[in-house]
Amino acid sequence: MSAPVALVVGAGDYIGAAIARRFARGGYTLCLARRNGDKLAPLIDEIAAAGGTAHGYTMDARREDSTAEVFARIEVEVGPLDVVIFNVGGNVRFPVAETTERVFRKVWEMACFAGFLTGREAARHMVPRGRGCIFFTGASASMRGNAGYAAFGAAKAGLRSFAQSLAREVGPAGIHVAHLVIDAGVDTAFVRERIAAAGGDPDAMPPDTLMNPDSVAEAYWALHQQTRDGWTFELDLRPFAEKW
Amino acid sequence: MSAPVALVVGAGDYIGAAIARRFARGGYTLCLARRNGDKLAPLIDEIAAAGGTAHGYTMDARREDSTAEVFARIEVEVGPLDVVIFNVGGNVRFPVAETTERVFRKVWEMACFAGFLTGREAARHMVPRGRGCIFFTGASASMRGNAGYAAFGAAKAGLRSFAQSLAREVGPAGIHVAHLVIDAGVDTAFVRERIAAAGGDPDAMPPDTLMNPDSVAEAYWALHQQTRDGWTFELDLRPFAEKW
Amino acid sequence: MSAPVALVVGAGDYIGAAIARRFARGGYTLCLARRNGDKLAPLIDEIAAAGGTAHGYTMDARREDSTAEVFARIEVEVGPLDVVIFNVGGNVRFPVAETTERVFRKVWEMACFAGFLTGREAARHMVPRGRGCIFFTGASASMRGNAGYAAFGAAKAGLRSFAQSLAREVGPAGIHVAHLVIDAGVDTAFVRERIAAAGGDPDAMPPDTLMNPDSVAEAYWALHQQTRDGWTFELDLRPFAEKW
Amino acid sequence: MSAPVALVVGAGDYIGAAIARRFARGGYTLCLARRNGDKLAPLIDEIAAAGGTAHGYTMDARREDSTAEVFARIEVEVGPLDVVIFNVGGNVRFPVAETTERVFRKVWEMACFAGFLTGREAARHMVPRGRGCIFFTGASASMRGNAGYAAFGAAKAGLRSFAQSLAREVGPAGIHVAHLVIDAGVDTAFVRERIAAAGGDPDAMPPDTLMNPDSVAEAYWALHQQTRDGWTFELDLRPFAEKW
Repeated sequence: MSAPVALVVGAGDYIGAAIARRFARGGYTLCLARRNGDKLAPLIDEIAAAGGTAHGYTMDARREDSTAEVFARIEVEVGPLDVVIFNVGGNVRFPVAETTERVFRKVWEMACFAGFLTGREAARHMVPRGRGCIFFTGASASMRGNAGYAAFGAAKAGLRSFAQSLAREVGPAGIHVAHLVIDAGVDTAFVRERIAAAGGDPDAMPPDTLMNPDSVAEAYWALHQQTRDGWTFELDLRPFAEKW
Repeated sequence: MSAPVALVVGAGDYIGAAIARRFARGGYTLCLARRNGDKLAPLIDEIAAAGGTAHGYTMDARREDSTAEVFARIEVEVGPLDVVIFNVGGNVRFPVAETTERVFRKVWEMACFAGFLTGREAARHMVPRGRGCIFFTGASASMRGNAGYAAFGAAKAGLRSFAQSLAREVGPAGIHVAHLVIDAGVDTAFVRERIAAAGGDPDAMPPDTLMNPDSVAEAYWALHQQTRDGWTFELDLRPFAEKW
Repeated sequence: MSAPVALVVGAGDYIGAAIARRFARGGYTLCLARRNGDKLAPLIDEIAAAGGTAHGYTMDARREDSTAEVFARIEVEVGPLDVVIFNVGGNVRFPVAETTERVFRKVWEMACFAGFLTGREAARHMVPRGRGCIFFTGASASMRGNAGYAAFGAAKAGLRSFAQSLAREVGPAGIHVAHLVIDAGVDTAFVRERIAAAGGDPDAMPPDTLMNPDSVAEAYWALHQQTRDGWTFELDLRPFAEKW
Repeated sequence: MSAPVALVVGAGDYIGAAIARRFARGGYTLCLARRNGDKLAPLIDEIAAAGGTAHGYTMDARREDSTAEVFARIEVEVGPLDVVIFNVGGNVRFPVAETTERVFRKVWEMACFAGFLTGREAARHMVPRGRGCIFFTGASASMRGNAGYAAFGAAKAGLRSFAQSLAREVGPAGIHVAHLVIDAGVDTAFVRERIAAAGGDPDAMPPDTLMNPDSVAEAYWALHQQTRDGWTFELDLRPFAEKW
């Protein structure tokens, strides 16, 4: 019996990499997709060194043809997809007055439209088999708009709504759709830079104040282990000291 | 003293027309925008016959240049905009598997992206004056995704999130942003056709089972009369017998 | 034809008084209920001086017998109730560890249980007539719990849930149930004291920073004017500069 | 090193028993509380037979003295509480008009007030130690009111709000508070009877249509394994084919 197959769309960031490692450690063959697949080599090597298997794919998740082609290749070359996790970000912050048409559109294409393409493509392959998991990474901005988040919030709210529609549609066919709301800063270079830019000292923060990407990965792992008589559609995730 | 000015973006449907009539009756000079401005003539004539004033504009609300140009013309030729109501629909219903890339994108451009352009443009003109109303028409699909509503829901959820961001950003500058959730069928030819297509008889429905577009218009009128010490951001609207 | 009748339960505070004045001005005969009805004399006199009619009732809204008896008396002595507004507060602030059993229970009895009794009693009289309005005053705490609001939040969330159940149950019978979320400080002596206690200067606050009780009253008036083809169940209300 | 200690308040039903078994299997010493502690003997024996340890307590969760006394005894006789799960139900269904004062109050005392007492007592013991988990079982009715659910919904909404307040208050002190929303029928004798009473045949239902209590238990187990840099406050749980 061959290993089950998981695809991480948006495998380029800390969270994507942590998810990949977690599922590889759990016995999955990993498929990793990002815009520039060449950059996946270190992660693929790391997974291989740990005894796992990972394949890298160059995929423009905002394009239907690119997405469909990568899904089709994986199904043929690696095996039937069991888990697909959409983890593409696009967090930007602008006042409405400075949000250009281009920014609003680009953020939506990355954070919402690409999620639709990935979700639809995953469902197409999974529904005939009557099983599979399709998970989406959300954020605080998925839940409410806020000053400075006009573009990012609108895109993430759209992604969440799409995940709800998809869950209701393909859940009865045996596909587990879930939406994970990361309501906090994850411990990444990007977040540390932003804290520093805001006058804070990320190195002086108390332990566990930022979320470890591994904790996000663990939440996805727990979700995927749920049996179909008791599925979670949505859960939030934040560090203990986070204000909310 | 000249009359205050209201713009209805998406003035082509029953609701848009009802809003226009209500604000004209309330003493506003009406500016009506839709993709094909020529079709506005009957409504303009109707408002004029009732003693009001209305101007028609051809505007592609999905295009920045077209939107900005119409706003600029109104400000110069008619007067400073006091009320801008975004009432563009785009309700479609498809299973995810049959939702094409084109449909998902078009619905978003109409229902969300155009709302962003209208909201941003309105805010640009209003913020320096420290007053004005920017209202958005929402739907049940704004609040949650559902089977068959992948495209429409994602777009309307995005619009709602944008309205929240905008409200939080420009509220303190004196601009009243609101989002009206129409959680029911409005009495239009489109809805009656859908009821008939589903095997129902729209003419046999009990009175007040469908929402009168005038009731939506009245809700907008009440919103715009609120003083700035007590603004509503969101309210729902549905007929008394509606299941929810 | 006699005047329509409105009852304000919790008519003792600023908001209750403002609602009473607004409905009296709109042609309603007002019934005012509070724990100590004797204290209603100034408000009754004020309404009478302005040409209206108001009756005062001593009612313990937390007691079934007291509530039922006042409703019955009004129906017989004044006329059929058209509008009933439940406006009983009970805002307290304690950390969980300092929230006694007694506080938790008392706050619930005032803010939730009394609302159930009033709502049920109003529905019993209104449903056979197929018309009437039952409105509930909510607060930020109705929407989410927060540090310091364990007792108040739990009670207000319960009241909101009850209002939803009641709306769904008696809406189809023609009864308009609504829940108004006051998401801000209303300009009352109590709020001004709290601002002062927190080191602020309520007199130095910019205009319209606190909500005028009259604006709450106006929102209730607008709700009650809605026709049954387009009812609002819930709307929020806050000053323009409020953070949310 | 002694085993960690978990307390299940409301250990009398299927879910409570499943939670107890899961934590016993995971190495916890179990404390089980219900109104009549004598009835816990079979579950205690079952856990012991499986190699675990469980203690039974008679506790009226609606009474402060009874609750405080059981907590104090456990802390002294068994050890410091690591996990406390409040799993008291009280699901009743009545139209508002038939909901007596007594029912409304009793349901609240069981489903909300008792949760407050348990949560407060757990927090008092855990906060000084800077660690611990306090979990609450919610239901669909926690999220919205509905026809027939006036009493149950108001109580469960209150419990959820309390859990939110508690989480925000003691989270920064290192206590993990979570609320699990069971948005479906769990496979219990009670639910099967209700399905039969409604004309259905519970034995003819497709597999996994009802939720297995073990799946609820597993969700609690996963929650309690989260590290404090990434805690979930709320997650839903429903079978794959459930309409929502």
